[in-house]
Amino acid sequence: MRLSLQPSLDASDYRFTHALRTRFAETDAMGIIHHGAYPAYLEEARSAMLRDAGFPYEVVRSGPEGVDFAVLELYVRHRKPLRFDDEVGIHVLVDCLTRTTFQVGYLLEVGGVPRATAVTVHGAVDPAGRPSRMPAFLAGLAGAR
Amino acid sequence: MRLSLQPSLDASDYRFTHALRTRFAETDAMGIIHHGAYPAYLEEARSAMLRDAGFPYEVVRSGPEGVDFAVLELYVRHRKPLRFDDEVGIHVLVDCLTRTTFQVGYLLEVGGVPRATAVTVHGAVDPAGRPSRMPAFLAGLAGAR
Amino acid sequence: MRLSLQPSLDASDYRFTHALRTRFAETDAMGIIHHGAYPAYLEEARSAMLRDAGFPYEVVRSGPEGVDFAVLELYVRHRKPLRFDDEVGIHVLVDCLTRTTFQVGYLLEVGGVPRATAVTVHGAVDPAGRPSRMPAFLAGLAGAR
Amino acid sequence: MRLSLQPSLDASDYRFTHALRTRFAETDAMGIIHHGAYPAYLEEARSAMLRDAGFPYEVVRSGPEGVDFAVLELYVRHRKPLRFDDEVGIHVLVDCLTRTTFQVGYLLEVGGVPRATAVTVHGAVDPAGRPSRMPAFLAGLAGAR
Repeated sequence: MRLSLQPSLDASDYRFTHALRTRFAETDAMGIIHHGAYPAYLEEARSAMLRDAGFPYEVVRSGPEGVDFAVLELYVRHRKPLRFDDEVGIHVLVDCLTRTTFQVGYLLEVGGVPRATAVTVHGAVDPAGRPSRMPAFLAGLAGAR
Repeated sequence: MRLSLQPSLDASDYRFTHALRTRFAETDAMGIIHHGAYPAYLEEARSAMLRDAGFPYEVVRSGPEGVDFAVLELYVRHRKPLRFDDEVGIHVLVDCLTRTTFQVGYLLEVGGVPRATAVTVHGAVDPAGRPSRMPAFLAGLAGAR
Repeated sequence: MRLSLQPSLDASDYRFTHALRTRFAETDAMGIIHHGAYPAYLEEARSAMLRDAGFPYEVVRSGPEGVDFAVLELYVRHRKPLRFDDEVGIHVLVDCLTRTTFQVGYLLEVGGVPRATAVTVHGAVDPAGRPSRMPAFLAGLAGAR
Repeated sequence: MRLSLQPSLDASDYRFTHALRTRFAETDAMGIIHHGAYPAYLEEARSAMLRDAGFPYEVVRSGPEGVDFAVLELYVRHRKPLRFDDEVGIHVLVDCLTRTTFQVGYLLEVGGVPRATAVTVHGAVDPAGRPSRMPAFLAGLAGAR
C-alpha cells in the first residue's frame, strides 16, 4: 500500500477546484448518491485539473511521452452523503511524487461542508499498459497552492 | 430509423435466455432500477448469446473477419419497474438481417411477468469504426427458435 | 409504443440547450463513449431544462402535486460516436402531451455536427409509483421555441 | 480513518466466494475494466454473501432491526487489470467488528491470479440514515472460515 497522502478538510489547502452537479442516475434506493459514482467524480476533477494546467488528456496520451495514468489505488472516506442536484466543489492536489507514482488528494464539499475526502495513487503507463517514465510536467503540478 | 422488430411478450418466441440479478448500484432514489442500467443488461444478454453460439466477443473481434457490432439504435419500453435483487430472465432473438445491419429483440421478465421489451439495431464495423461486411455466422443466429 | 416525436437535426428547432463534457469513465474498449452512458446524458439535460424553467426536481417531487416523471420508453439513434472530452450540446424539446404522458426530443451535437438524436416518453407518477395527473406547468414547456 | 483490515492474497483465507463476469459496458478506452466499476463488484459480492448467510438485503432492510449498511470508507488496490469477459472470483471476509462499524475484505482473482484487493468499512444506519445498532447476525459472519 503506497497510499500515504492525508487529504485536508480545508479547501484552501488545495490547488485546483472543479465543480460538478450530481445526476439522478447516480442516486440509489437509499436516496443518496451511490458510493460507486465517486471514482468518476474524482476522475472528472483530475482531468479538469490536467486540462487547466495545459495538459489535456488527449495531448498527454498521444504526445511524444504517450502516457496514461493508471489507477493503482483508490481510497474514499464518506463523511456525509451527497444527494441529487447537489453542486459539489471538488478540490484537488497532486503530491507524493516518486520516480514511478504520484498521489492525488481530493476534498468534496457542498456549500463549504465536507462530504468526502479521497486519495488516488497513479502510475504512468505506456499505451500497452507497461510502466513508463513519469512525464516532467507532473512535478510542476505537485505541492500546495 | 431502421428499428422495425416488434419484440413479443411470449418468452417462447425467443431463441436464447440469459439470467442476471440486478445490483443495488443500479437502483435510483425512486427505489427502482434506473432506466440507464438497461443498455448494459441488454448487452450482457447479447454477449451471452454470442458466447453460447460459439462466437465469444474476443474471437469475433480478433478473428479474420475482425468485427465489432456498433449500436446504431436502441429502444426500450418499460412495462413494470425492476427492483434490487430481482432475478431477471432476458430472452433474446436476432432478426431483420440486411447486408449491413441486424436487429436484436429482448423480453425482460421476472417470474414470468414482463418488465420491459427492447430492440437494438447493430452494424458491423472494423476496428477503426468503419462499416464492415456482416460476418456469415449471424445468418445462423437469426430467426425464431 | 407511444413514441411518435421525430427529433430534428436542426438545433434551432429546440427550446433549451444543455452543455456537458463526456467522462473517461464513460468510454469503452472501442475507444468511444459507450451507448449505455446516453440515458444519463439525456436525463441530465432534461433536469437542467426543468431547473431552468423554474421547476427543479426536488420542488416538483416534494410539492403539492408531488410527482415523478417515470421513463416509459427510450429511443436513441447513434449517428456518430462521442469521444472522451467532447463538449456536447444537448438540445431539448417537450412535445406530444396527452392527459397522462409527454415526450421529450433531443439532439446531441459536437461543434454543430449531430452525433445522436433521442426521444423519451414519460408518465407522471406519484411517490408510490402510481400514475398521477400531469402537472399543469408541463403545458407551458411544450412546443417549439 | 478506520480502515485497518489487510486483505490476504490467499483465497483460502476468505469465507465466501462470489463469481461474476465483467461487462463490456464496464471497459474503458484503455481496453481494461474501468476502476469505477469495482465498487459495484464489491457490493454484488457483499450482497451475495449476506444472501448466502440467510440475510438477504430486503429482509435485513425491512426487518425489525431495519438497517442499511452505509459505506463509510472504500479502499481498492489494483494489481493487474481486469478485461472484458473475465470470470472473476471475488473472495469475501467480514472482520474488525466494533459496536458501530465492521469491515469487509475482498480478493479479486481470475484463474487464481490476484487482480485486486479491497476493503470497505460499513456502519449500520436506520432508514433515515442515522447510525443504528449493529444487527446481531453480523458477529456470526465475522472471522476466518
